[in-house]
Amino acid sequence: MSVTVITKIDRMTRWVPGAAERLHEAALELFATRGFEQTTATEIAQSVGLTERTFFRHFSDKREVLFHKQHLFVQAFLAGVEAAPPDASPIEIVASVLRSATSFFPDERRHPSRRRQSVIDQNPALQERELHKFAGVATAVADALRVRGVAEPAATLAAESGITVFRIAFAQWIREDEQRSLADIAEDVLHELLNLARGRD
Amino acid sequence: MSVTVITKIDRMTRWVPGAAERLHEAALELFATRGFEQTTATEIAQSVGLTERTFFRHFSDKREVLFHKQHLFVQAFLAGVEAAPPDASPIEIVASVLRSATSFFPDERRHPSRRRQSVIDQNPALQERELHKFAGVATAVADALRVRGVAEPAATLAAESGITVFRIAFAQWIREDEQRSLADIAEDVLHELLNLARGRD
Repeated sequence: MSVTVITKIDRMTRWVPGAAERLHEAALELFATRGFEQTTATEIAQSVGLTERTFFRHFSDKREVLFHKQHLFVQAFLAGVEAAPPDASPIEIVASVLRSATSFFPDERRHPSRRRQSVIDQNPALQERELHKFAGVATAVADALRVRGVAEPAATLAAESGITVFRIAFAQWIREDEQRSLADIAEDVLHELLNLARGRD
Repeated sequence: MSVTVITKIDRMTRWVPGAAERLHEAALELFATRGFEQTTATEIAQSVGLTERTFFRHFSDKREVLFHKQHLFVQAFLAGVEAAPPDASPIEIVASVLRSATSFFPDERRHPSRRRQSVIDQNPALQERELHKFAGVATAVADALRVRGVAEPAATLAAESGITVFRIAFAQWIREDEQRSLADIAEDVLHELLNLARGRD
């Protein structure tokens, strides 16, 4: 490959400030208005004046735009495990995980989150990918609990319960008529889970 | 289409007694020994003296062989909701669901279940499909709980908790060194979940 060609490719794929964010916002807009299947990566890029090449520098395919920043999402859960005091019980650690994870979704994220969910709800393959994402978070949290000395099956039960509470709270948070913060809803749902478990006797 | 051609197709696709069972067993054997990706529908059919056409009469693709009888699996969970007494609490219904669902897996199914799981564990697309299956079961159980008058979020929490307990118990049941029945393991795991939830205070 000649130097000219390399320089040309380098110029075409150069770093564009905030490109991932712009592509992400544009994709959500197009997916929500036109439909996920009907939108191409090229159209997403062009709608914000970027090239298809720039799109593929940031995302492997259009599906991945919806799972942007997933590593930060997982980290928000794991930070909650870290933040719990050393003598915390597994369920106290779950409460700490929920406080940390929900702080990742301040109220200004409610509208884009609702829009993203409406896209996912309309596509079975995206739903499977979303389930896979949460399964990965649950595995990571269970691993972190075991590192803290929580035995099995308590570690997996606590991690899975935390994810279930988060998902139920999240679905409620993005409802059109909902005003409470995600943190408040998650606290209520966790409380319901504890009541449910205590109600057996 | 002439009568001759119709008769010929009819003969080629005629009902073969126990074909689905034989294909299912053959597929598990080939997936486990050769690998899922390396096995074709034709090879599965030929290994038990059947045609590819017969295979596709029973299964839409080779992946679906692993999700054979899924409707019976869902029914086993729902029968547990039905079987619970009218005044049962949500967690008592979950206990009933687990007794019913685990009775679907007597000890003679432990070895084929272990083999099936080893195939799924090696293939991310199959893992996503498996997660999707359990999500569907959880939704069906939550629906049945709401029909019984259990409110939200208790219905979804109870259903998801039941599935979590089932999955943890199932993973333990198919371990090489495990001797206990799936029902006994599930009862222990449910007990752990209740202890966990009660341990917060």
